[in-house]
Amino acid sequence: MKYIPKPLVRLIDSFQRLPGIGPKTAQRLSFYLLHVPQTELDDFSENLSKLKKTTILCSVCKNVGEVDPCTICSDQTRDKMQILVVEQPLDILAFEKTAKYKGIYHVLHGSISPLDNIGPDEIYISDLIKRVSNGNPTSEIIIATNPTMEGEATAMYLSKKLNGLSAKLKVTRLGMGVPTGADVEYADENTLIQALAGRRRMK
Amino acid sequence: MKYIPKPLVRLIDSFQRLPGIGPKTAQRLSFYLLHVPQTELDDFSENLSKLKKTTILCSVCKNVGEVDPCTICSDQTRDKMQILVVEQPLDILAFEKTAKYKGIYHVLHGSISPLDNIGPDEIYISDLIKRVSNGNPTSEIIIATNPTMEGEATAMYLSKKLNGLSAKLKVTRLGMGVPTGADVEYADENTLIQALAGRRRMK
Repeated sequence: MKYIPKPLVRLIDSFQRLPGIGPKTAQRLSFYLLHVPQTELDDFSENLSKLKKTTILCSVCKNVGEVDPCTICSDQTRDKMQILVVEQPLDILAFEKTAKYKGIYHVLHGSISPLDNIGPDEIYISDLIKRVSNGNPTSEIIIATNPTMEGEATAMYLSKKLNGLSAKLKVTRLGMGVPTGADVEYADENTLIQALAGRRRMK
Repeated sequence: MKYIPKPLVRLIDSFQRLPGIGPKTAQRLSFYLLHVPQTELDDFSENLSKLKKTTILCSVCKNVGEVDPCTICSDQTRDKMQILVVEQPLDILAFEKTAKYKGIYHVLHGSISPLDNIGPDEIYISDLIKRVSNGNPTSEIIIATNPTMEGEATAMYLSKKLNGLSAKLKVTRLGMGVPTGADVEYADENTLIQALAGRRRMK
C-alpha cells in the first residue's frame, strides 16, 4: 500500500469492512470513485451518515422503517392473528414479494449463536414473547428462521418458549425440502431427509 | 421496494452505481450497515466525501497522490529515462509489487474506445507527447495498456504518435503470452498466437 495515497487507503479500509468485499474489490471500488463527480460522492456520503438517523425500528415488530409502528403493522387489511418470525428485515422483503402472506411479522435481528456470544437475550425474542402474552390475540406463529444450525437452534428455543403460553396458539416451522427448480440428484442428505419428513399427500 | 424505507432505498441506489455491485448485493450491504455503529458510518461517509478533495493528479505523470509531483516522480533514485504507460493508477500498484521496474510512469486514465465516445483527447495522451517532446530526455516508452481491443487500439495510436518524435526514442509494448501458472491447454487462440510471436531463444 506504499504508493496508495492515504485518503484512498482509508476508503479502501471502509469498503473492506463490508461483508463479502475483499481487499481487491475494495481497491477497485475506491479507485473507481475517483472518476465519479463530487456531487455523487456527496450523495453517497450523506446516504451513509443519515442511514441510521432517519430510520427506526418498529416498536411492534422490530422491522426497519421510517414511522412507528411500521407500514405493515399499521396496515388494517393485514391479518394480525398470524405472526411470521424472521431473522432479518431483508427476509420480510422475500415474503412480501410472494404476495401470498397476509399476516404480520416479527424480526429477531439475528439468531442464537453461542460461538458468536449471541444468546436469546441478544436478539428480540423476549419482545416476541411479550407481544404474544400481552393479550394480543394470536392464532399462529410461523417460525421462518434460516435452515442453518443457528436458525434451527433459534426455532427450537422459540417453540419451547411459545408452546407454554397458550393452548390455542399454534406454532409452525417453515416447510423444508427441495427448492423449486432444483435437481433432486444434487440435493444434500439433510435436505432430502427434511423433504421426506415433510412429504405431502397428493391423492 | 415498496416496504424498504426511503433512506435505505437511497443507499441501495448509491451502492448499485458501483461496478460489479448488483441489486442483491447492494441490498445486503445496505441492510448490513444498519447494524454498524454510527461512528463507523460517519467515518465511511467522511472518507467518501473527502476522497477527491484530498487527492490530486500528479502534474507530471497523472497518477493519484497527495502531493504534486507524486512520490514516484520526485523519487531521485528512479530512472527518469524510462516511462511505463498504463491505463489506470491501480496498474501502477501491480508493477510496484514486482519491485523490478525502476523507471517512472504515465497514467492515461482510460483507453481509446469509440463506442463509449472516448477518443485520444479524452485521456492523457497529449500530456505524454508533451512530456516526451519537451526536451525531457527519454530513452524508452513501455506501453502497458490492457491486452483488450481498447488497450490495443490505444497502444497502436500511441506508438504512431511517439515514433515520429525522436529517432533515439524506443517504443515497446508489454510482452504478451501465457501467464505464469496457467495451462497451455486452456489458453485461447489469440494468447497462443501472441505467445508464439513473442517466443524467446533459450539456448
